[in-house]
Amino acid sequence: MARARVGVILGSESDLPRMQDALAILEEYGIPYELAVASAHRSPRLVQEWAGGAEARGLEVIIAAAGMAAHLPGVVAAWTPLPVIGVPLGGSSLGGVDALYSIVQMPPGVPVATVAVDGARNAAHLAAQILAVADPALRERVRRHKAALAAKAEETFARYRDRGAAGSPGTAG
Amino acid sequence: MARARVGVILGSESDLPRMQDALAILEEYGIPYELAVASAHRSPRLVQEWAGGAEARGLEVIIAAAGMAAHLPGVVAAWTPLPVIGVPLGGSSLGGVDALYSIVQMPPGVPVATVAVDGARNAAHLAAQILAVADPALRERVRRHKAALAAKAEETFARYRDRGAAGSPGTAG
Amino acid sequence: MARARVGVILGSESDLPRMQDALAILEEYGIPYELAVASAHRSPRLVQEWAGGAEARGLEVIIAAAGMAAHLPGVVAAWTPLPVIGVPLGGSSLGGVDALYSIVQMPPGVPVATVAVDGARNAAHLAAQILAVADPALRERVRRHKAALAAKAEETFARYRDRGAAGSPGTAG
Amino acid sequence: MARARVGVILGSESDLPRMQDALAILEEYGIPYELAVASAHRSPRLVQEWAGGAEARGLEVIIAAAGMAAHLPGVVAAWTPLPVIGVPLGGSSLGGVDALYSIVQMPPGVPVATVAVDGARNAAHLAAQILAVADPALRERVRRHKAALAAKAEETFARYRDRGAAGSPGTAG
Amino acid sequence: MARARVGVILGSESDLPRMQDALAILEEYGIPYELAVASAHRSPRLVQEWAGGAEARGLEVIIAAAGMAAHLPGVVAAWTPLPVIGVPLGGSSLGGVDALYSIVQMPPGVPVATVAVDGARNAAHLAAQILAVADPALRERVRRHKAALAAKAEETFARYRDRGAAGSPGTAG
Amino acid sequence: MARARVGVILGSESDLPRMQDALAILEEYGIPYELAVASAHRSPRLVQEWAGGAEARGLEVIIAAAGMAAHLPGVVAAWTPLPVIGVPLGGSSLGGVDALYSIVQMPPGVPVATVAVDGARNAAHLAAQILAVADPALRERVRRHKAALAAKAEETFARYRDRGAAGSPGTAG
Amino acid sequence: MARARVGVILGSESDLPRMQDALAILEEYGIPYELAVASAHRSPRLVQEWAGGAEARGLEVIIAAAGMAAHLPGVVAAWTPLPVIGVPLGGSSLGGVDALYSIVQMPPGVPVATVAVDGARNAAHLAAQILAVADPALRERVRRHKAALAAKAEETFARYRDRGAAGSPGTAG
Amino acid sequence: MARARVGVILGSESDLPRMQDALAILEEYGIPYELAVASAHRSPRLVQEWAGGAEARGLEVIIAAAGMAAHLPGVVAAWTPLPVIGVPLGGSSLGGVDALYSIVQMPPGVPVATVAVDGARNAAHLAAQILAVADPALRERVRRHKAALAAKAEETFARYRDRGAAGSPGTAG
Repeated sequence: MARARVGVILGSESDLPRMQDALAILEEYGIPYELAVASAHRSPRLVQEWAGGAEARGLEVIIAAAGMAAHLPGVVAAWTPLPVIGVPLGGSSLGGVDALYSIVQMPPGVPVATVAVDGARNAAHLAAQILAVADPALRERVRRHKAALAAKAEETFARYRDRGAAGSPGTAG
Repeated sequence: MARARVGVILGSESDLPRMQDALAILEEYGIPYELAVASAHRSPRLVQEWAGGAEARGLEVIIAAAGMAAHLPGVVAAWTPLPVIGVPLGGSSLGGVDALYSIVQMPPGVPVATVAVDGARNAAHLAAQILAVADPALRERVRRHKAALAAKAEETFARYRDRGAAGSPGTAG
Repeated sequence: MARARVGVILGSESDLPRMQDALAILEEYGIPYELAVASAHRSPRLVQEWAGGAEARGLEVIIAAAGMAAHLPGVVAAWTPLPVIGVPLGGSSLGGVDALYSIVQMPPGVPVATVAVDGARNAAHLAAQILAVADPALRERVRRHKAALAAKAEETFARYRDRGAAGSPGTAG
Repeated sequence: MARARVGVILGSESDLPRMQDALAILEEYGIPYELAVASAHRSPRLVQEWAGGAEARGLEVIIAAAGMAAHLPGVVAAWTPLPVIGVPLGGSSLGGVDALYSIVQMPPGVPVATVAVDGARNAAHLAAQILAVADPALRERVRRHKAALAAKAEETFARYRDRGAAGSPGTAG
Repeated sequence: MARARVGVILGSESDLPRMQDALAILEEYGIPYELAVASAHRSPRLVQEWAGGAEARGLEVIIAAAGMAAHLPGVVAAWTPLPVIGVPLGGSSLGGVDALYSIVQMPPGVPVATVAVDGARNAAHLAAQILAVADPALRERVRRHKAALAAKAEETFARYRDRGAAGSPGTAG
Repeated sequence: MARARVGVILGSESDLPRMQDALAILEEYGIPYELAVASAHRSPRLVQEWAGGAEARGLEVIIAAAGMAAHLPGVVAAWTPLPVIGVPLGGSSLGGVDALYSIVQMPPGVPVATVAVDGARNAAHLAAQILAVADPALRERVRRHKAALAAKAEETFARYRDRGAAGSPGTAG
Repeated sequence: MARARVGVILGSESDLPRMQDALAILEEYGIPYELAVASAHRSPRLVQEWAGGAEARGLEVIIAAAGMAAHLPGVVAAWTPLPVIGVPLGGSSLGGVDALYSIVQMPPGVPVATVAVDGARNAAHLAAQILAVADPALRERVRRHKAALAAKAEETFARYRDRGAAGSPGTAG
Repeated sequence: MARARVGVILGSESDLPRMQDALAILEEYGIPYELAVASAHRSPRLVQEWAGGAEARGLEVIIAAAGMAAHLPGVVAAWTPLPVIGVPLGGSSLGGVDALYSIVQMPPGVPVATVAVDGARNAAHLAAQILAVADPALRERVRRHKAALAAKAEETFARYRDRGAAGSPGTAG
């Protein structure tokens, strides 16, 4: 089994469905990861040990997801020198803006790289981009992913443009 | 086929249902349009080429719709001297206020004419009003549309007023 | 004296300092304008007459600025088929988000082309872009303005790049 | 048929379901009302005539409800010296905060008495309280309504207290 | 000394500067008022007695102003059948939106007629409009006030229009 | 029957479902409570009597829950020297941020200990922590509850870690 | 020296001026406290040790203040069974709403008793109320504090009432 | 001169004062950087060329800062496979929440690693953490920086603790 390069940590097992896309994308990139479920508030020692040992276990980047007060990403960042990506989860009465503010507004010295509310997929893409800084093969896969996005976009664009040429709704104008 | 006068661009094919009303209203006005789907982030070159060539293709006004970070209208505006109408799309965890701020808060020199969150219909009406500045026949259609709205409103108003005269709920008072 | 092409209307004389930039930019473009001060709430008949007669007076575009409840742009739009640009003014206890929502969230059929909070300058640029739809000379000035912005940006960019080459702070790294 | 004392005006027929409770409560108070549907933006002249003639028709208080940009209450207030109660309607992408700000943030000199988002019932209660200022019989009905609310609350309170005495969940503690 | 018709109550003596305009306008209308300072939280019995006895003392309308949690208007409304006007005061860390929500979002049955954040002047105008419902002389003064606003607006409007005619900045265009 | 130590008060019977968890947790802790339903606005005298008599009835902590303007916790706090825990209830058009601001932004001298929007469970846990300040047996139960949370979290953590060891999704990487 | 009963912890020395009032009020109540400055993010082990040992040191209640992401109160609550009072500090670009959401929106099982943004004084009052649950002498001081607030409010109330009687501004009406 | 590893790009020269701290911290880490000033809207081609060529120039991480609509970080991310750190700048009428939403709410596939509003310093720390993923010497400096923060925090903590021991304010209690 490959050594995990990315640590993915969720505050609660119930957050897993909102984060499945991140795991799937890490797999597409071929990036081995370890998945942890631990709450910054209910099991702070677990989080401390998991985050404090992350570097020694060989992790290179961490993805931490949480909702509401969403302290998990910041607490993890406090215990490790690794870059930490934070994913604010929506679904609370306040719609996720609570988690967003809690994750992004970190004080100087301890950053969390924040992505969109429920931005699981971008957390994985960002992790790949970070690892690719010193991994040419992975950089190539990141580049191919960008190219694939562009190609798919071009295909869609062409489909609409051609439809227009053949008899776009505008011809009725 | 008539030369398109309005370019309608969406950041994603999935935005089309939220923008169908804009297309329908352009058709009602008899304004030929071209429809493009291209993402400012996934296919920036397409957007640049589409927007950069808009004036040369004969477009006179652009409608750009996007959700979340919603950079598309601003990016299009950067590449064209044509007036750009921006439609913030809702449906994100933040309810559309993210797209609204991203579209409306443009820096000096590069405006985007912003309409309401999910305001597809008003984007089309605004495009018609802009084209009508130098198109008396279209101005007449804009005026007729306004008159039709007023007439329909008067019909509704009269219906309620007459109902009141015959025996409004207030008569119980 | 040239016939005014743009009507600029403010809800209150005290709004004038926040809108001076719009007037200055219209003058730079050489676009004749008329300036009106009239409140949608304190002098509704004035607003109605001014807006209702705007087309007949030869106006082609309207810029309406207001703060707080900021009904002026929408009320003007109700009385004219001309395109109306709305400028939400800040400075209230709510910081301008009240004016922004009041101006941008117009119902279907009566759009207001909204620019940024305190976006006086972009209101003028947008008016120029709209008039330029059928005014090649003005389009040329819009294009030149865009080119001047880009040229100034390139000059700034070059200044920083060259400074970097000569001994950027990064060389200390 | 009794002369209407309260004018209820809605921006759109589709707002009626959200305002039915206001009508029902006016009827409970025995306050005759007239119901109008007219948009400040689509039929401004109707609104102006309806509001401008309100005092002469014998109306004493006005209730105006609208969503999104929600200019109707403020526009009505501009045309009449009568007190105007504004009801911000929810249901937009912004959840009603747009309508709330648009209605409550009126400039000095032209107030709108704003109630809660979707606060149809309180609009009617407030109208009754206002009319009761010079109508002892209605004041008595307002007082009775308050007393009925208190009596019902006391009955509920007693039901829970007695249940507690007989074997409240707390006894398990 | 005239019997007071309006009761003005502030949560704290420090709120007085933000409410002076309301007192001045009541005086302009010639409406006698009584001024009370009492906190819903620090002196609840005072508030209860003051509000509970308001009708008996001959008060006809109440204006209540408070900041932050701003319970005062709602608490007063709980103890009196008189119409209560609420003024949310700004100046807190949250800029007044806290007071606005606390005052306007009253539950069914106990309305508070809310005006703008720091809308002291409109509280007084609204009180006058309410009293005018059954006071033709005061109605006349309300009407005159509206007319004065309109006249002043017309004077301002004319000043700008004439300036334009003589050589508006637009003539440079 | 044990003397109630915690008073739980709701503004409306319809709030009970959102607060059931608080009651269940108090029962788990073995803390006797009394449940009251009384509105700060519809039955202010009941609230005053209930809160004013709370200390004499032997209550030691109060939990007050309300939505929208949500004055109940603050009003209760005004009438008692006991610590008051406030629970902002969601479900309004504004999503609970109205209740949150109304409850948390209390003026100096009369605090309300506010928990999350719809944070019924934490209200009960906080009540237990407060009572435990001088109740070693209850402190032990609070400690055991914290330990149980941690143990459950550790069990979940271990389950995911072991799954990873056996063949985590990352091995595909 | 008396054993400290309240632990006051700040995320940064620069937060001290915003929290001085809390210390002053604890001193007025005669409640011994210890003051700590430790960041949840920059010195997590210190926070863990300080909070983890709080109960053993004899602390009974904790007050934790922080701004921006403001994880300190929640992190402290994770390591102690004592009740934790959280004070959101303003002054960030987001005005304190970030700290408010981060502190109040704690997940089930680990509450933080949140007071107003910059509510230092209420944090101290709440601590006193909590300690008073089992400290009759302190309860008496809490009661006296409440009575003093009420007495001062009554004195202010009387001063305004008497001024009114002698010749209130209303007499001009 | 060392090859730049981090590219720092600002939307406007006027943003430089808000970003100086980022440059200073990169220098402390000994990380060579290049500084660019280019607007996504006024000079889109410059941005495209600068971002499109970033990887080829040897840049490994990008920091992009912008205010208001703040499209720069997202536009840069569209043109490069490198990780992009976004800094929302405050100072607009909306206080920076506009820039925050515009930067953080990126669509799937094109992440921007967002830090706090005006979080210049954390942008530099995050860049260092990212580069340190494959740079043991830099990792050591990141670790030392974390240790220095902790040491300074411990010194501050000790200073307050000792002061307390010698005669803390609490001793007066």
